[in-house]
Amino acid sequence: MPNREEVVNFGAGPSTLPTAVLEKAARGLLNYNDLGMGIAEISHRSKDFKAVYEKTISDFKTLMEVPDTHEVVLMQGGGMGAFSTVVLNLLAAWRLKNPESDAKTTIDYIVTGSWSNKAAGEAKRLTTDTNVSVNVALDARKHSQDGKSFSTIPPANQWNYSADPALVYYCDNETVNGVEFDKSFPYESLPPDANLVADVSSNILSRKIDISKHAVVYGGAQKNAGIAGVTLVIVRKDLLVDTDAAFKLGGIPQVPHLCDYKRHADNESMYNTPPMFAIYVSGLTFEHIKSHGGLDEYSKLSDRKSKKVYDVIDNSNGLYNPKVSVESRSRMNVVFTLPDEDTEKRFLAEADKLGLKNLKGHRSVGGIRVSLYNGITEEDTDKLIGFMRLFK
Amino acid sequence: MPNREEVVNFGAGPSTLPTAVLEKAARGLLNYNDLGMGIAEISHRSKDFKAVYEKTISDFKTLMEVPDTHEVVLMQGGGMGAFSTVVLNLLAAWRLKNPESDAKTTIDYIVTGSWSNKAAGEAKRLTTDTNVSVNVALDARKHSQDGKSFSTIPPANQWNYSADPALVYYCDNETVNGVEFDKSFPYESLPPDANLVADVSSNILSRKIDISKHAVVYGGAQKNAGIAGVTLVIVRKDLLVDTDAAFKLGGIPQVPHLCDYKRHADNESMYNTPPMFAIYVSGLTFEHIKSHGGLDEYSKLSDRKSKKVYDVIDNSNGLYNPKVSVESRSRMNVVFTLPDEDTEKRFLAEADKLGLKNLKGHRSVGGIRVSLYNGITEEDTDKLIGFMRLFK
Repeated sequence: MPNREEVVNFGAGPSTLPTAVLEKAARGLLNYNDLGMGIAEISHRSKDFKAVYEKTISDFKTLMEVPDTHEVVLMQGGGMGAFSTVVLNLLAAWRLKNPESDAKTTIDYIVTGSWSNKAAGEAKRLTTDTNVSVNVALDARKHSQDGKSFSTIPPANQWNYSADPALVYYCDNETVNGVEFDKSFPYESLPPDANLVADVSSNILSRKIDISKHAVVYGGAQKNAGIAGVTLVIVRKDLLVDTDAAFKLGGIPQVPHLCDYKRHADNESMYNTPPMFAIYVSGLTFEHIKSHGGLDEYSKLSDRKSKKVYDVIDNSNGLYNPKVSVESRSRMNVVFTLPDEDTEKRFLAEADKLGLKNLKGHRSVGGIRVSLYNGITEEDTDKLIGFMRLFK
Repeated sequence: MPNREEVVNFGAGPSTLPTAVLEKAARGLLNYNDLGMGIAEISHRSKDFKAVYEKTISDFKTLMEVPDTHEVVLMQGGGMGAFSTVVLNLLAAWRLKNPESDAKTTIDYIVTGSWSNKAAGEAKRLTTDTNVSVNVALDARKHSQDGKSFSTIPPANQWNYSADPALVYYCDNETVNGVEFDKSFPYESLPPDANLVADVSSNILSRKIDISKHAVVYGGAQKNAGIAGVTLVIVRKDLLVDTDAAFKLGGIPQVPHLCDYKRHADNESMYNTPPMFAIYVSGLTFEHIKSHGGLDEYSKLSDRKSKKVYDVIDNSNGLYNPKVSVESRSRMNVVFTLPDEDTEKRFLAEADKLGLKNLKGHRSVGGIRVSLYNGITEEDTDKLIGFMRLFK
């Protein structure tokens, strides 16, 4: 019966949070701010919760260096929900700017792994029978050695953008495949005035990202930013539009209330009862990150942790086989295989005995996956590489 | 600096949960099942979380007496989200049964308060430019004394159903207005084979409801069933349909992934990462209700608590003025006014001093609102009526 100190959770998410954050959250659940009521029991319109909300947004803006041109909205539905909402809202914005009945557009997807591939699939569904078509500007599988794996991101000069897309979508870090953009998306490759959309669900708060280059940056909270149940959405203010007026022009999909950015923004994310406890935990997580050096420190930490693991892999004489090309290796999700399934099983079993948990790769790709989210300390990483060296 | 025992939270929601539930939830947040990891930190596909999920669903089905004809799906987006999802999914089911290109239908709304009114508004938005029109079969305001308040539910023979609606929608308890259906919706009034949809967000688990009479019964968890962030949806299995196939037939709105009942049901509510902690708290709440006598007991308790408060109102010689006609009075939200604003302010201030919190009426209607959700004990209610008698 282990306690928290005896276990390291390398799972791909939901993931480990700092114990101090969870301890404070647990106290707040029973009695917040000495109100005699818990944070999830008070009105979301009370001054106490409003203060929590405002501090959460403000700390998040500080950490992410969100410029005044952008707003932060808290929504529900996770990354999967955002696959729909970004399409719906950005097409509404496009339609208002292009009100001619025969106006047509494309939306571009940079597919570098399972998640961006699913996002492109949802975009295709939503644009059925509309004036909009989906252009897969990159399918990275075609650039892999076996022609079917997501294992590299080819340079942007090999991508196939539309001339004037209504949005360009990418996933900054692909959790399943362990593929991440090197330092940042290649902004210089974009068509003029393209509305760039980033899914940062699994590397948010692990390095800086230039928000000003983006139309929307979003992430589910449950990796580096809290617990599952709240989606953090940074959206450029001119994209908060009247989706009803846009829909009336025809040619684009309808936007249900719960997907509408402007409606949520206008109501300070309280159009409906927000997931208060999840927001509280995100707020505590932001506070923790701020007080530990902010993204300057967490960025360096992520570099150091992942470098340590990749070094063991690269010096293992082929015992550990990396699956991703060097320049596209994720700092968050390190994926590799062992020579055969039996050895993999032994690796997982022995790691488990040492308290090194949840190292199994995603069911769709197999192998081993080491997730090094912000909740994993350098000492945790050292335990793992010690074991990896020993296992060798 | 009060503790939980010194305060009673009569707020309209999010609302008080049993301290035992929150204490267990707080422990699980840090270390669930002695895993050395918290319930919000493990994979939603782990056997530990699957067990939580399955027990939660099973206990909920037991409490609600859900028949085999119906499935339970856990979603996000609260009641407001469900305003959209019920329309989208039930129209898809209707379309598949009525594939002729010129097929038309209506959907009926029984508007008895602010929430059903908002639901009807969203239905009107979503059915713009479709083969579907919204019929407000009842606007209860027209039956009130002043012609503009929601203060009574007239008998069903005064409603105006469509001949063959694709759905009939009602809100079983109107939180803002303190209006509740007496015992149950008048099922015998329905057109043949009508798909009845109930919003039970604010009286779920406070009395029995005949699920077999319904197509969909849903509620946000944050009143009687847990914390904000999870929506409990009971849906008849034949309504879990291929919404893409339906949309291809034309004349109905598109269904984004996050709104799709079948997609969530097919994936055991884990199409995306579910709000794990909110689900855990709901599960603990169900366990608590089961071990305290289930709906038999909570139903009697709700009757007793509300009767006590209404008795004080009715015997106050006009100090406390009930706003709702006797037969439509809510057992969950007791609303009344005092003779003038000053007296109301004094009432609220003196109650507050005694630890009787959050008695202010909804900002849209004013007055006093006493919410008597399951988390409010009979002793809590006695404290309040003691004060109400004294104040008189």
